Amino acid sequence: MTVALLFILLDAVGTFVFGLSGAMVAMRRRFDIFGILVLAVATGVAGGMVRDLLLGSTPPDALRTVWPLAIASLAGVCVFFFKPLIERLNRPVMLLDAIGLGIFAVAGCRKALLYGLDAPGAVLLGVISAVGGGVLRDIMATEVPRVLHEDIYALAALAGAAAYAGCLWFGVQDSIAAVGAVIFAVGLRLASVRFGWHLPHPPK
Amino acid sequence: MTVALLFILLDAVGTFVFGLSGAMVAMRRRFDIFGILVLAVATGVAGGMVRDLLLGSTPPDALRTVWPLAIASLAGVCVFFFKPLIERLNRPVMLLDAIGLGIFAVAGCRKALLYGLDAPGAVLLGVISAVGGGVLRDIMATEVPRVLHEDIYALAALAGAAAYAGCLWFGVQDSIAAVGAVIFAVGLRLASVRFGWHLPHPPK
Amino acid sequence: MTVALLFILLDAVGTFVFGLSGAMVAMRRRFDIFGILVLAVATGVAGGMVRDLLLGSTPPDALRTVWPLAIASLAGVCVFFFKPLIERLNRPVMLLDAIGLGIFAVAGCRKALLYGLDAPGAVLLGVISAVGGGVLRDIMATEVPRVLHEDIYALAALAGAAAYAGCLWFGVQDSIAAVGAVIFAVGLRLASVRFGWHLPHPPK
Repeated sequence: MTVALLFILLDAVGTFVFGLSGAMVAMRRRFDIFGILVLAVATGVAGGMVRDLLLGSTPPDALRTVWPLAIASLAGVCVFFFKPLIERLNRPVMLLDAIGLGIFAVAGCRKALLYGLDAPGAVLLGVISAVGGGVLRDIMATEVPRVLHEDIYALAALAGAAAYAGCLWFGVQDSIAAVGAVIFAVGLRLASVRFGWHLPHPPK
Repeated sequence: MTVALLFILLDAVGTFVFGLSGAMVAMRRRFDIFGILVLAVATGVAGGMVRDLLLGSTPPDALRTVWPLAIASLAGVCVFFFKPLIERLNRPVMLLDAIGLGIFAVAGCRKALLYGLDAPGAVLLGVISAVGGGVLRDIMATEVPRVLHEDIYALAALAGAAAYAGCLWFGVQDSIAAVGAVIFAVGLRLASVRFGWHLPHPPK
Repeated sequence: MTVALLFILLDAVGTFVFGLSGAMVAMRRRFDIFGILVLAVATGVAGGMVRDLLLGSTPPDALRTVWPLAIASLAGVCVFFFKPLIERLNRPVMLLDAIGLGIFAVAGCRKALLYGLDAPGAVLLGVISAVGGGVLRDIMATEVPRVLHEDIYALAALAGAAAYAGCLWFGVQDSIAAVGAVIFAVGLRLASVRFGWHLPHPPK
């Protein structure tokens, strides 16, 4: 599989799982079907839009092709009809959000490197595009974004993007670096939830 | 009347009514005069700014000309002095918001088509620029954006933008298509509120 | 000191104090160390990012150089370890926020003038970049942004940016105009808090 195709696939999966997470939040708040679609699309495409805006790559992918919109809408429809199925997952919003987080961190970092940013800027852009969708979802639902109060959330995105940039630096092949970094970021996020890892909190 | 002039006029009216809606929300929260102006300007110009950013048309109109700022500020001042007059309207924020919604959906779609986007991307951009101002207004007032919980809100914007793009496709003259699509979107929104039309909500 | 160097220094100070203010808010909410860093960085760099986006200067400074990220992160670390020291200040978030507000209003206005905007657009961009970081900070912490409910907040940013543009118009030397305008804006904001100056509120 070529690298370009791999990243198209990753982007699609990331958009879909973020769309699912947005739709799940909208279902809990009992919005109607179109409110659910709006939050699914907003959560699915916002991170990529912010990434493209910051890189000066306008109009962003989500407006140039119909796929991000279609994929995120499909996620919203899936949640509307098959919510009980998704709810059998353990903490579905957390899980879906973690997968999207890892994918967009690496994909955002890669696009920034292709656009000529240095590694630190590229890693920061990866983090921004990874957390962007979730921040918009939580703000629109008037909740404190989980990037602020969940332990090891932005840190997992940072670790994934930095691992990817580091692997490329040491000459690892692009697709291996990408898949490894995504698994690393998602695994770190899930492990931190599963095992209750905590970062230091401020002293009282 | 030329098409360009018609759209300048529509943009002005949309900015003004969104400005009024932002100022009304600020009045209810009892902000001071400058807080009212800030929310009027933010609500009036945010949608257009996001539209221009996503199209790569920088600096956006609202910074290149003084009109959007002046019109939205005027709306803030009007509300400060003539609030009782505006409050005689039935649900003024909803009504003003509906007019702005329809106008910006069509105007955003048109600008995107002029910039060479395909119809689906142009319709999506129309929806984003139509709901952008209201989302910022509601988020800044720490309310759940009405695009999420009001029935037939984003759907009305989508219907207006799609109707406009569809009319052009079938060769309808630009200004007729624009006016018709705006009336259709505003009418759909108002009718849904008046007659209590609902979209399906998720099953319990 | 050259003008360019002065503005680099001002930008650094503004990023640092905004970073401190974001970290202080995060500490109060008892986020963990990384949540504190995220809010410090978001508050410190958001205003400048929005400014660069609106000017079409992409990728923004905060991604092209590592300094804004490093400075805002340092602010987060400082707050984590030395919070008691900062808390001895009278209303530290208000004070730090005021300094950042004045600096970014003038720096944003200057960059906009360099990019060829007219004075009104440049002043508006100064206000947007001055209030942008604080709005994001308050929205992420699910508080009503202080730009809406604090008397003489956006007005202080507007006064600073307008004073700077006005001084240049009358031929005052750039660095003198800049320092004077920053002091004027910060002083106006602090004086309004200290002496309880109020803008008119809407009649009951």
